[in-house]
Amino acid sequence: MHARPKPGLSHDYRALIHPAGARFVEVLDQRALPHAVVTLRIDDAGAATAAIREMVVRGAPLIGAVGAFGLALALDADPSDAGLAQAHSMLDAARPTAVNLRWALDRVHARVAELPNAERADAAWEEADAISAEDIEINAAIGRHGLAWLRDLATRKDGVLNVMTHCNAGALATCGLGTATAPLFLAHSEGLALHVFVSETRPRLQGANLTAWELSQHGIPHTLFVDGASALLMRRGDVDVVIVGADRVAANGDVCNKIGTYGKALAATDNAIPFFVALPSPTIDWELASGDAIPIESRAADEVLHIAGRDHHGAASRVTIATSGTAAVNFAFDVTPARLVTGYITERGIAVGPDALRDMHRSGNDR
Amino acid sequence: MHARPKPGLSHDYRALIHPAGARFVEVLDQRALPHAVVTLRIDDAGAATAAIREMVVRGAPLIGAVGAFGLALALDADPSDAGLAQAHSMLDAARPTAVNLRWALDRVHARVAELPNAERADAAWEEADAISAEDIEINAAIGRHGLAWLRDLATRKDGVLNVMTHCNAGALATCGLGTATAPLFLAHSEGLALHVFVSETRPRLQGANLTAWELSQHGIPHTLFVDGASALLMRRGDVDVVIVGADRVAANGDVCNKIGTYGKALAATDNAIPFFVALPSPTIDWELASGDAIPIESRAADEVLHIAGRDHHGAASRVTIATSGTAAVNFAFDVTPARLVTGYITERGIAVGPDALRDMHRSGNDR
Repeated sequence: MHARPKPGLSHDYRALIHPAGARFVEVLDQRALPHAVVTLRIDDAGAATAAIREMVVRGAPLIGAVGAFGLALALDADPSDAGLAQAHSMLDAARPTAVNLRWALDRVHARVAELPNAERADAAWEEADAISAEDIEINAAIGRHGLAWLRDLATRKDGVLNVMTHCNAGALATCGLGTATAPLFLAHSEGLALHVFVSETRPRLQGANLTAWELSQHGIPHTLFVDGASALLMRRGDVDVVIVGADRVAANGDVCNKIGTYGKALAATDNAIPFFVALPSPTIDWELASGDAIPIESRAADEVLHIAGRDHHGAASRVTIATSGTAAVNFAFDVTPARLVTGYITERGIAVGPDALRDMHRSGNDR
Repeated sequence: MHARPKPGLSHDYRALIHPAGARFVEVLDQRALPHAVVTLRIDDAGAATAAIREMVVRGAPLIGAVGAFGLALALDADPSDAGLAQAHSMLDAARPTAVNLRWALDRVHARVAELPNAERADAAWEEADAISAEDIEINAAIGRHGLAWLRDLATRKDGVLNVMTHCNAGALATCGLGTATAPLFLAHSEGLALHVFVSETRPRLQGANLTAWELSQHGIPHTLFVDGASALLMRRGDVDVVIVGADRVAANGDVCNKIGTYGKALAATDNAIPFFVALPSPTIDWELASGDAIPIESRAADEVLHIAGRDHHGAASRVTIATSGTAAVNFAFDVTPARLVTGYITERGIAVGPDALRDMHRSGNDR
């Protein structure tokens, strides 16, 4: 099962591939993008944990899938109860904020816990494959619902539709077409005139490095801007809609997403611009009453103080932007209150407001 | 007149020095900070124009003073009406947004226009010196008014007072103690416990490069953060007050300042945190009814696509963060609506709201 372009979409890269029958997975090393396309093979649970922690892979749905395969790899090595518990705990600690990771690990755990040791690894690989396949389907469904809404918006507007996004909620954050990007890829492939404003997303620059690269792979016109310019661009009337992803959504509709999202939601609200969150339903944490209870991952100051890119020879390089000894704080996520969210685009449809989100999802069999 | 520490303040650097009697000025090359302290001599109007355009010097009050000295230098070379007009026009075009530049150029122009050619240059140098000296006084007065307010805030709070600022409205932006920083420097020197959250301020990183450096020169505890984290830090309760500078303020109180300011004002409002703008009165443009009429300087995409710093050998270096051909938009400023501003700290006092600002300044003899 190697990466294949989908019909009508130039989606010829994949964040995660599990070759049929293989006891390893391959991931794109997202730290090397956009300057180089490097594939890494992950063949034990330690490598899976490191890939998540070091952000070789990132994006809530993708982290979940890599975590699931990581647990399968661990069971190949040691299918005992102790091995299962130790691997689950190690993988779960790799990134504390994304709820999908815990969800995927728990799902694989539940699938194998009652099995004899000798059957656990095969069952875990099957479950990880199922999680990955379902994510691809979820992305496609998010894309269809978002597309219908974008089509409708386009009919009420002359000219190009301007979408703003933040960080990377693209194919690189998932197993499929992405969450926030899925409607854009589908819209572009059916000829809707789109332009995307891409927020660079300091500190790690996932907008500049990943989203801009993905849009260029698909041939979608886009413009990079610094995070601080979000509000001005909206005030100028340059933006028709904001669509972002989510790392965790609380039961009240509060959205935990990449640092900078809350500011964009404030700016959208102040300028009466629709602000949408695209998310697979496993991102909703029904156990959490509100976003205030979401633990916010605090990462190394080094990510703020140093910026990685390419030097003028094209070689990987990084520069420091402050004098040594400068303190920096580096919260990876923020929480956008539900009152600032126009709607949630999920695989089941578009929910306008947190009540609709709850009704849409609690009524069905949540995954 | 070389840089001297002020009593009680470790302010031993100066953005602009005019040695007594000299027909040149010296400026700190702010592009080299914080990694190196480099002084450049400016001895003709072309060099003054380039220093403003290339952001060797920046900050509205400092740009005004350098512009004034630039006009004096031009008149040393050619004191004719044509020379005066040509230099005025060249200098004025160097940065379109800051109103102080035009104000200072017009002030020197008015001083010399009716004089015989032979007397123009000396008069221009005198006027430029006066502008510089007045800016130092204005900074000190802003500092005193802001200090009184910070003292009052500190009495109502246990522990350290947390101030957030943006870009650099420091001594490096003026001829004196700075605008937003003047109250901080005075408060720290009298023993008030302060901590400053410094927004890195992409694209040019004036927060990381300049404000953090200034605070470290003064021994004031500070923490750097990415611009996108502003709203989260406020929501967490980490910030007691936001103080920023201004490049131009409209008659209705709308504030044009470094890109990212508007987003901070939205976050402060959403979290009921006081948002103050520190400004010298020449920054107020009474001819402009509202901020919507302020021309926003659009700078080269290169500033977004490349980031300058030091490599691991300590050598000046820059990295590119996107693939070649990536488009970027780079507006240098944004406009914060007056409704989001708690108060204006000027040399005459603190005006709470735009009406108070107008009453305070229109009643007196505006400079």
